[in-house]
Amino acid sequence: MALTNGHKPRFVDGYLAYLLARASFLISSEFHETLARQRIPVMHWRVLASLNEGALSVKELADIAQCKQPTMSRAIDRMERLGLLRRGVDRGDRRSIRVAATPKGKRLVQKLMKLAKDHERAVLEPFGQADGRTLMDVLQKLIELHVRER
Amino acid sequence: MALTNGHKPRFVDGYLAYLLARASFLISSEFHETLARQRIPVMHWRVLASLNEGALSVKELADIAQCKQPTMSRAIDRMERLGLLRRGVDRGDRRSIRVAATPKGKRLVQKLMKLAKDHERAVLEPFGQADGRTLMDVLQKLIELHVRER
Repeated sequence: MALTNGHKPRFVDGYLAYLLARASFLISSEFHETLARQRIPVMHWRVLASLNEGALSVKELADIAQCKQPTMSRAIDRMERLGLLRRGVDRGDRRSIRVAATPKGKRLVQKLMKLAKDHERAVLEPFGQADGRTLMDVLQKLIELHVRER
Repeated sequence: MALTNGHKPRFVDGYLAYLLARASFLISSEFHETLARQRIPVMHWRVLASLNEGALSVKELADIAQCKQPTMSRAIDRMERLGLLRRGVDRGDRRSIRVAATPKGKRLVQKLMKLAKDHERAVLEPFGQADGRTLMDVLQKLIELHVRER
């Protein structure tokens, strides 16, 4: 693989943590350009995609979006003002606040998830079905193993 | 795969960009804990690992470490004061400054690269040789394809 243009192979190009960070950055950046063209802040996409299956707490949202809770609270404030989200009390635990998408937020995320899946298909296309499936499976299992260990 | 503890599958858990970001965060965080125990700042590791095969410019270092050039310049200042790096003039282009590891920096990075490779082996071990190799190959090719497109 000619990653180094004829120079000797670089340590980082054969090192998993670097490859994951670099691939993540490149692939996310491409989709963020799609979001920017639609004037959608990246955080709005992350929050709405996370809420696709139902309401979550601020802590759960911050964990998925890999940001701090105060940062997430401010994003939720802005998205509530835009009519994309609403805060409500958890039916099971009345002390706990849950965040859910409004119908407007749900319509937006349906459109964005379709764009995201189109982008994903284009990214995976050169690898063929078997290697694409292995990539997804290994990443899912890797996450499962390392979340548990924490 | 029981990522969702019996709830319906989440969009993000089947979405490549999220899986890459999450796996990258978890795996890097684990190695950063190893670095913290040795009181090595993450940036020092990134810079020294990048310089393993020879001198680079500040811009090249910032690209590999995925940070801004002023951030990288400040890190280089600190590492120069610690005797880990030196700045020099490029032999080919006398207007251009190159950064290289000192013998002290090289000794440190040899030790850290061994720890990094031990961690990587432990991370890949559950997947077996074939899937581990596919993961690395697909990530390398994915980076190559998407760097070119930018």
